[in-house]
Amino acid sequence: MIKEAIYHKPINQYLYNYDNETVHIMLQAKAKDLKSVSLVYGDPYDFTGENWNYKLKEMYISGQTESLDYWKVEIKPEFRRLRYGFYCESFDGQISYFTERGHYSEAPKAIGYYFCLPYLHEVDTFSAPNWVKDTVWYQIFPERFANGDPSINPEGTLPWGEHDPTPTNYFGGDFQGIIDHLDYLSDLGINGIYFTPIFKAGSNHKYDTIDYFEIDPQFGDKEKLKELVTACHKRGIRVMLDAVFNHSGFYFEQFQDVLEKGEASQYKDWFHIYDFPVKPGEKPNYDTFGFVANMPKLNTANPEVKEYLLKVARYWIEEFDIDGWRLDVANEVDHAFWREFRNEVKQIKPDVYILGEIWHDSMRWLQGDQFDAVMNYPFTDSVIDFFGNHSIDVKQFKNRLTEIMHMYPENVQNYLFNLLDSHDTPRVLTLANQNKDRVRLMYLFLLTFIGSPCIYYGDEIGMDGGGDPGCRACMEWDPDKQDLELRQFIQNLIQLRKETPVFGAEGQFEFLHIFEESNSIVYQKQTDNEKLIFVINNSDQEQIITVPELAGQATQPIFADQAAELDEHGQVQLSNYGFQCYKIQ
Amino acid sequence: MIKEAIYHKPINQYLYNYDNETVHIMLQAKAKDLKSVSLVYGDPYDFTGENWNYKLKEMYISGQTESLDYWKVEIKPEFRRLRYGFYCESFDGQISYFTERGHYSEAPKAIGYYFCLPYLHEVDTFSAPNWVKDTVWYQIFPERFANGDPSINPEGTLPWGEHDPTPTNYFGGDFQGIIDHLDYLSDLGINGIYFTPIFKAGSNHKYDTIDYFEIDPQFGDKEKLKELVTACHKRGIRVMLDAVFNHSGFYFEQFQDVLEKGEASQYKDWFHIYDFPVKPGEKPNYDTFGFVANMPKLNTANPEVKEYLLKVARYWIEEFDIDGWRLDVANEVDHAFWREFRNEVKQIKPDVYILGEIWHDSMRWLQGDQFDAVMNYPFTDSVIDFFGNHSIDVKQFKNRLTEIMHMYPENVQNYLFNLLDSHDTPRVLTLANQNKDRVRLMYLFLLTFIGSPCIYYGDEIGMDGGGDPGCRACMEWDPDKQDLELRQFIQNLIQLRKETPVFGAEGQFEFLHIFEESNSIVYQKQTDNEKLIFVINNSDQEQIITVPELAGQATQPIFADQAAELDEHGQVQLSNYGFQCYKIQ
Repeated sequence: MIKEAIYHKPINQYLYNYDNETVHIMLQAKAKDLKSVSLVYGDPYDFTGENWNYKLKEMYISGQTESLDYWKVEIKPEFRRLRYGFYCESFDGQISYFTERGHYSEAPKAIGYYFCLPYLHEVDTFSAPNWVKDTVWYQIFPERFANGDPSINPEGTLPWGEHDPTPTNYFGGDFQGIIDHLDYLSDLGINGIYFTPIFKAGSNHKYDTIDYFEIDPQFGDKEKLKELVTACHKRGIRVMLDAVFNHSGFYFEQFQDVLEKGEASQYKDWFHIYDFPVKPGEKPNYDTFGFVANMPKLNTANPEVKEYLLKVARYWIEEFDIDGWRLDVANEVDHAFWREFRNEVKQIKPDVYILGEIWHDSMRWLQGDQFDAVMNYPFTDSVIDFFGNHSIDVKQFKNRLTEIMHMYPENVQNYLFNLLDSHDTPRVLTLANQNKDRVRLMYLFLLTFIGSPCIYYGDEIGMDGGGDPGCRACMEWDPDKQDLELRQFIQNLIQLRKETPVFGAEGQFEFLHIFEESNSIVYQKQTDNEKLIFVINNSDQEQIITVPELAGQATQPIFADQAAELDEHGQVQLSNYGFQCYKIQ
Repeated sequence: MIKEAIYHKPINQYLYNYDNETVHIMLQAKAKDLKSVSLVYGDPYDFTGENWNYKLKEMYISGQTESLDYWKVEIKPEFRRLRYGFYCESFDGQISYFTERGHYSEAPKAIGYYFCLPYLHEVDTFSAPNWVKDTVWYQIFPERFANGDPSINPEGTLPWGEHDPTPTNYFGGDFQGIIDHLDYLSDLGINGIYFTPIFKAGSNHKYDTIDYFEIDPQFGDKEKLKELVTACHKRGIRVMLDAVFNHSGFYFEQFQDVLEKGEASQYKDWFHIYDFPVKPGEKPNYDTFGFVANMPKLNTANPEVKEYLLKVARYWIEEFDIDGWRLDVANEVDHAFWREFRNEVKQIKPDVYILGEIWHDSMRWLQGDQFDAVMNYPFTDSVIDFFGNHSIDVKQFKNRLTEIMHMYPENVQNYLFNLLDSHDTPRVLTLANQNKDRVRLMYLFLLTFIGSPCIYYGDEIGMDGGGDPGCRACMEWDPDKQDLELRQFIQNLIQLRKETPVFGAEGQFEFLHIFEESNSIVYQKQTDNEKLIFVINNSDQEQIITVPELAGQATQPIFADQAAELDEHGQVQLSNYGFQCYKIQ
């Protein structure tokens, strides 16, 4: 038994309220080291004389990587509280009771040795808006989606799509353009739009805010935004805006005041300024986003700044009825601010979605007191690396996905914002080296995984493009230049996800098999009533894949790839980059 | 290299702001597996072309148990942000770069692989009142400290100390009694008093509150409390009261209203009632503290209850200038409530001390947003088990203490409330089987350890007693019955702790040696300027202990045990249960 690798703490993904009556407990151990683990548990106050009354409940492996096994158990404690430890048996015949105070050969008698769940409080349970897990998002970069009102074109607007995107050029995308194409989006099947920033700013991307209370005039006015939101809501489409609270733009009035008046400015503490006068330039003497001098970092611990930004957060919900805030560079803003932010916005609209832009382990923000979700870039990278460019093999893919699925509590997983690309990355087709078969597999995986998936505008019709600014090209509206087959494919997936709960976030995801030689994976999704098995050939060769779970089963192919054939031994014949999804009947 | 045992997450004790410019990073690994570990780190935005500019900084072992090594490093990131990983070299010649995405043989190029400290925010840094680490506490159970005003004796008051304590008898201890003995406490040297509850309640212990806004009449009135607090403050003694917010008493007006009016009561949602009518008794149909029917659990998520309890919290600070709140059964109250509680009380008195009663791993409450400290019962148990009853050996003692010292961030450790016993445990003399030599060693250890130590009333003059009610006997005021030698010993320790910063919380604690055969330990305390070495013989035999660090050193014995002698080879001769403390000159 490798005791040093056995890990549990009564916090985060290891102990959490799953719902109002259930707690989940997880233990990690070296892979294939433990034969069985049982939870030793009881009520902290349930004694007969000196003896604590505990029970045992078998745990199961909820995921396995090459190095670790994740052991899990669900418990509904009668009085909402628990003391617990772990009874471990290893394959080499050792046993151990693992407690908060280490390993023992017998169950410690004193209750103080055990881990504790003091009381399951509903108010502390992570909760996110229910609608999110049934949402398929579409990300729009407003300057580049559609130009519906040339009368408000910014100066120097170029003809739509006739130039490559640059960091500084404009094509006049606007709200009217989006309104004009809502039928297109409804037809695609999406039911949520995430807009990159729309407030008055100094650039085409609008991440350098000038005024948080004004719409950028190139997009329209407040009336037009209301019309857009109303039109979206009519179609059952939720609207999420981008809150850039980490930093302002250079031309933000308050920053200009500091530039002008220096230490005498009433806004001097709105930023993190080292000394006066303020010197922008290559090495600015104030904190910035990255090292970008025209994105001065806001001092979100300053009560005035807090009040201002919280007013912004409330205003667009109260006046425009938006459904979500995507929080730019959310990780670099303080936790205390986000706690207040959550309290404020949830008071106004309890089911508003709070989505943080964080690219790394985000457990600190997902404890129930801050965000509902983060942008799941670790997922993105794994999917791109496996399907897109084959830079990791099937074992590494399973390892990485399994780690990601055990990085946060299970009830957090359902709300994560899963994406393949965005305005901050190259487009998926480019990442897949123009191979559309690979792109199809990525969308298949994205749209059958747990969480809340997002499609970056234009991906569905085969747009390509490198990193910023390449990925920010004008939406292609000429049907002759659109890949309608890919669009149909994605449309079908979205449709299935909507019609079949097990297809989407409701279905529990589990890897069944991975095949190194054929670079193929088999996974299942299941609910209490339904089970789907997916077989995916991620190689450029035809493959025959044996899936024992399919042998002799009554199955129904529900998302057929033409060439996929299944025999009675569970052998599935798949063309190169072929796949099949079977519903077990 | 046992990679499965290498653990780090960018949260809790593994990554934290130490102060306004420093972060601490900790990695745990199997003991004696890694030869060296270096932090691989850089600014997240510092690239030359595609290449991330990272540096290396050697980490050190800050503690070692039989199973784990804790590797640590301190970093002051220039721009308050970091990406980082770990370069590990094992004794068996392997190397590995350990990142958020696992182990690699070469440093990953993509920054997304690395752990992240997004930005060091002062507002998120754990901070507790500075005065706490220089405080030596004295815990008073007011009913049993001194009866100074017989005119307010409760009905049936017994003559002082002439009966054993029972769960229901009264001896008339009161505020006047405490005021009368403040000279005694000043003389002992303590500078903080923790009072168990003083509000109107139905029992001698007062943990069953009837009215949170009234003083229990057996103790005096509000004027008398003011007199007491003022008298304490005059002597430089801080005052901490006990907030029993998890549950009320049976005779709490609001609970009585629910008992009487059932579902029609306006207070029906102040508690956790399963169904009506409310039925107290052996199996009450409402949540309670433990299974105690006359301690109904308060619904702290109910805004009315919150408002009421927060008003209580503010009232006794605002009106009576108390310096701390000890929170009873703090772990069973929701986190959301405690966050609001902290905001409220710190707004009124920024340096008020918030101390939670939690007996187990308390990381969830010590992230900076809730408590300043918890009662450190894991410390208590280890000290009792090693010195008090010899139920663990010197190796186990070192393991347990090392684990405790790595359970929370280092800046939390300084404020932990360390105790040997309380009104909830048997007294230390009883736990030590009446062996006063052992009791002396425990006080020596308590008062030279980091953290904020507390003495339970009467321990210092050799009172004994079993668990509740035995530990709640009347304070012995007859000098002939007081162990004045023990008192002197403790007084001297307190004096040294006050005079010599390194003796107390300022001094970094480190185990130097443990000796299994002689059951002896050697530890050091050090600051930048001073170093102390403690040698303790925890056996009933005379021992000779070799301390290489003392060999040939100019040393000064600063807390001399008569029989301790040191020769030039660093050999210390100690009588049974003897000890010595050397100051290195």
